[in-house]
Amino acid sequence: MPLPREFHEIAERVNNWGRWGDDDEIGTLNLVTDAVVRAAAGTVRSGRRVALALPLHQDGLQTGLVPGRLNPFHTMVQINYEMFGPGTVATSDDTVTMALQAATHWDALTHVSHSGTLYNGRPADTITPHGRSRFSGIDKIPHIVSRGVLLDVARAKGVERLASGHAVTPEDLDEAAEFGGVTVGAGDIVLVRTGQSRLLLAGDKHAYGFPSPGLSVRTPEWFHARDVAAVATDTLPFEIIPPEIDGLWLPVHALHLVEMGMLQGQNWNLENLSTACGEESRYAFLLSAMPEPFVGATGTPVAPVAVL
Amino acid sequence: MPLPREFHEIAERVNNWGRWGDDDEIGTLNLVTDAVVRAAAGTVRSGRRVALALPLHQDGLQTGLVPGRLNPFHTMVQINYEMFGPGTVATSDDTVTMALQAATHWDALTHVSHSGTLYNGRPADTITPHGRSRFSGIDKIPHIVSRGVLLDVARAKGVERLASGHAVTPEDLDEAAEFGGVTVGAGDIVLVRTGQSRLLLAGDKHAYGFPSPGLSVRTPEWFHARDVAAVATDTLPFEIIPPEIDGLWLPVHALHLVEMGMLQGQNWNLENLSTACGEESRYAFLLSAMPEPFVGATGTPVAPVAVL
Amino acid sequence: MPLPREFHEIAERVNNWGRWGDDDEIGTLNLVTDAVVRAAAGTVRSGRRVALALPLHQDGLQTGLVPGRLNPFHTMVQINYEMFGPGTVATSDDTVTMALQAATHWDALTHVSHSGTLYNGRPADTITPHGRSRFSGIDKIPHIVSRGVLLDVARAKGVERLASGHAVTPEDLDEAAEFGGVTVGAGDIVLVRTGQSRLLLAGDKHAYGFPSPGLSVRTPEWFHARDVAAVATDTLPFEIIPPEIDGLWLPVHALHLVEMGMLQGQNWNLENLSTACGEESRYAFLLSAMPEPFVGATGTPVAPVAVL
Amino acid sequence: MPLPREFHEIAERVNNWGRWGDDDEIGTLNLVTDAVVRAAAGTVRSGRRVALALPLHQDGLQTGLVPGRLNPFHTMVQINYEMFGPGTVATSDDTVTMALQAATHWDALTHVSHSGTLYNGRPADTITPHGRSRFSGIDKIPHIVSRGVLLDVARAKGVERLASGHAVTPEDLDEAAEFGGVTVGAGDIVLVRTGQSRLLLAGDKHAYGFPSPGLSVRTPEWFHARDVAAVATDTLPFEIIPPEIDGLWLPVHALHLVEMGMLQGQNWNLENLSTACGEESRYAFLLSAMPEPFVGATGTPVAPVAVL
Repeated sequence: MPLPREFHEIAERVNNWGRWGDDDEIGTLNLVTDAVVRAAAGTVRSGRRVALALPLHQDGLQTGLVPGRLNPFHTMVQINYEMFGPGTVATSDDTVTMALQAATHWDALTHVSHSGTLYNGRPADTITPHGRSRFSGIDKIPHIVSRGVLLDVARAKGVERLASGHAVTPEDLDEAAEFGGVTVGAGDIVLVRTGQSRLLLAGDKHAYGFPSPGLSVRTPEWFHARDVAAVATDTLPFEIIPPEIDGLWLPVHALHLVEMGMLQGQNWNLENLSTACGEESRYAFLLSAMPEPFVGATGTPVAPVAVL
Repeated sequence: MPLPREFHEIAERVNNWGRWGDDDEIGTLNLVTDAVVRAAAGTVRSGRRVALALPLHQDGLQTGLVPGRLNPFHTMVQINYEMFGPGTVATSDDTVTMALQAATHWDALTHVSHSGTLYNGRPADTITPHGRSRFSGIDKIPHIVSRGVLLDVARAKGVERLASGHAVTPEDLDEAAEFGGVTVGAGDIVLVRTGQSRLLLAGDKHAYGFPSPGLSVRTPEWFHARDVAAVATDTLPFEIIPPEIDGLWLPVHALHLVEMGMLQGQNWNLENLSTACGEESRYAFLLSAMPEPFVGATGTPVAPVAVL
Repeated sequence: MPLPREFHEIAERVNNWGRWGDDDEIGTLNLVTDAVVRAAAGTVRSGRRVALALPLHQDGLQTGLVPGRLNPFHTMVQINYEMFGPGTVATSDDTVTMALQAATHWDALTHVSHSGTLYNGRPADTITPHGRSRFSGIDKIPHIVSRGVLLDVARAKGVERLASGHAVTPEDLDEAAEFGGVTVGAGDIVLVRTGQSRLLLAGDKHAYGFPSPGLSVRTPEWFHARDVAAVATDTLPFEIIPPEIDGLWLPVHALHLVEMGMLQGQNWNLENLSTACGEESRYAFLLSAMPEPFVGATGTPVAPVAVL
Repeated sequence: MPLPREFHEIAERVNNWGRWGDDDEIGTLNLVTDAVVRAAAGTVRSGRRVALALPLHQDGLQTGLVPGRLNPFHTMVQINYEMFGPGTVATSDDTVTMALQAATHWDALTHVSHSGTLYNGRPADTITPHGRSRFSGIDKIPHIVSRGVLLDVARAKGVERLASGHAVTPEDLDEAAEFGGVTVGAGDIVLVRTGQSRLLLAGDKHAYGFPSPGLSVRTPEWFHARDVAAVATDTLPFEIIPPEIDGLWLPVHALHLVEMGMLQGQNWNLENLSTACGEESRYAFLLSAMPEPFVGATGTPVAPVAVL
């Protein structure tokens, strides 16, 4: 069963295949030029830093709904181990087992395929169990540093958090940009705040996960028109679920990752950033959100930081 | 068997316990003020970014020498999985098991104890298998962004890499600072390049690991005198091994982590940064090296980025 | 706070320390002699085999109540991988991460300590994170094959399963032995059926886990008097919880593992065995329940089989 | 490139597809009837038990040659944890991450496919990353208990171990059967000893793994003619590598697992069994080698035991 015509029409309008060459593996991150980063550094005023990652622990946000989404399972392998004999300096070491998409993360471009195809027209079956993502694995992304822009949709609407069925529209994004006094431009990393993670931070991981507000299928064109480099939200599913077009699940994922070649961030904690931006009346900042270079991975935990 | 008097004499001179209060859990990172970060952002000239993490994969740098240091073991749990039915948008997910100290990482302050004691005088036995690091776990570090300074000791000496038995001394650091035209100051994160990781990048992980050049037991006083916030190197052991004082293993670890409360970074890839700094004739830059917030962990993988 | 006098009185009566030498690490499994095994093989009549392990999968019986009890997390690392070239024979491989006590398992003698002491008077602190169980780890048990006896307490009482607060008493064991026409003797492995796992098999893992019927603090003396080699049940906590003596948690664990040196089995599926024994009117059989030899481990998954 | 004609000719002669019905998922284990097990129990004379599993630990036999073959990585998650308060009974728990094929194991029937096909003609693509082995996963095998027969090829030839390039032929098996005074029959589990694991037990894991003696491509017909239920060896590759027919890698795997539907065991420790059988002059015994029921897995660790 092919995807509906409506999807393909949008896809055609936002498609970036070949835009940065047939060999390109990083998509819209090509838009983050040295000049963009220079300008981003220039936005720093106060030097205030806001971390955007959720804590990583076994009682994390995954509820078991998605079987492979294992919360971080952390164990000690050494505790005050005097490896050089009694009374010597002692060391403690640890390990973790976790889903790369368990908590605050980036989807790599290969996290999603449709119609047997990945970003830049590569065949989906180039992902294999033993080889993982041969192309566009998260390790192919050298760095993610750019101007970050917070589009605080919830705050712009004067609510603590959007209703769970709220599809964030292009109009909502315009409204939030206006509220923040920012113009989204080429190479920007846009953080869309719904306030949904307040549920998680209040301890209700089930309510946080589903149902959730999320991006409308109409937003990829908005991002595309502005040459946005990446988008992240404070929700688990990123986009509105159930979907707006009957039977078309995960269209925003497919448009961003496959058609545009644009990374998505999920489960970002934007609460402190909302407070900071509000206090400083500035919604643009330097953002560093480096991927851990897992070779061939379709995602990565990330510990983003905004520098205001 | 207590540690030798020589250690305690240095310890007394660099000790920071109580300096930021009895409840402090982050040590010298207190020195990274908003003003320091503002100034760090001001160092950005070209916008060039250099990533400093080694790739994460099963054929990583760990050789089995340290049993708990498991290289990242990455598996796919979904590949192009059409969870909403045939022909729908498909997803790929993955997981990893790894030692937090396996590759490019920060040691948390709790990575080392001596004489039964952790940073700020806390008892070492507050680390437990089930609770992990109750105090000063890596999750207690909110953010690591500051001015980075590359002390390119190898390049300053005109060699590709230091000899394996070379203990990097305060004089070496002075020489490299002069070579780079930088003055190390309060809140700086100092990256000490030995060139040792060239062996690793050339494929010889055994030669890379041991023997290795490393920091001399005399350097903690140098860092302390300048109120450095953190130090990282391009070696596995960080400090010179075997040690300079007979029978005193890991003294630099103990001085930095326990006495000073200063984070250490290991296995950082400083090769591209050396090239970039050389090309731009600037050895100071904005550095973001955010820890992944593993709750109670004694270390964390990190994907640092220098912005020049 | 020391354990209550009542505990120590029982402990004194069942203590086996030194009984098999000061160096002994396997406790009551010493009672399984060649002669016992010969006789056990002689109990085989029909050749019918009944497996007693629960399936191992991510949706296992652990509910997250005990943080370290990770359900088996199983991933494929190769799928039909043609490692010798296209069209060659292809292989599929997999890995697992799991708590050794997650499902059907044996507790090793070191799973429990009390008053700082393990079985045979060894100090509890001989268990370390890096070295694990130096003494009495599960790998020290060479084999577990003996006569198995099903004490079908639920069936003897004519109920599907015991009430959740039911403490299984020595009288209950006598009743079940009489019902089954068996005399428990030296070297036997006793399987105590409560019927509790019916809840799990019906899909209610929460009801299965707690509250649960379990062995009374009075039963260790019953097992001791008969020189039983090991005991297993079809419950998660093994013994009755909350405990019968106020404030004395896990007394049966402490008496069996520490005082007697007797292995315990938990989460065994005894439903099919109950049916088989009922049909064949025989409650004694050959039992093989080999531990996986994890070096230094305090437990092991086990796939027991009864041969009738 | 299709497999050579020679392979297909043998395959035709040993094929068991449909023999136990189109729905069958366990293959030659159907040959282990109650009568076979009764007879197997009747072989027990001395009651002597011999365990056949190698120890499970991080310094296991895998050398990194096969990337996914992770040695067991075992960590403690609780150590003497007084969960009910100071002075109460304390517990220790642990976890493991390991390849299911890392040490002593059974290959499930799905471990190998050829020409896109699994045992009983099922499509190889029924194995998926999220669903694993839908058919013939190791959990479909209810139990493995039968008569075991040791064919001590090395001892029959009067050598400590076979030369590394030695392909074990049908004639070798006949010779070993005659040496042991046994006739291999329907439902038997045959253990073929080469002595290769002496290298491993002496500490040389590299020499153990490759090159190695192993079963000839001519042996599947020998096992088929006798209706053997399963075969295990004391080697890593099981069959002779490099292969006897140019370019035909893993033919024995494909014949056993795909064509015959017969489980294979690898890395079994047959040294003590060789000694015991020699001492008792009996090479047939009761064998229990229960799979751990990992749902959908293509293999399982196993702790086999022979009862003489």
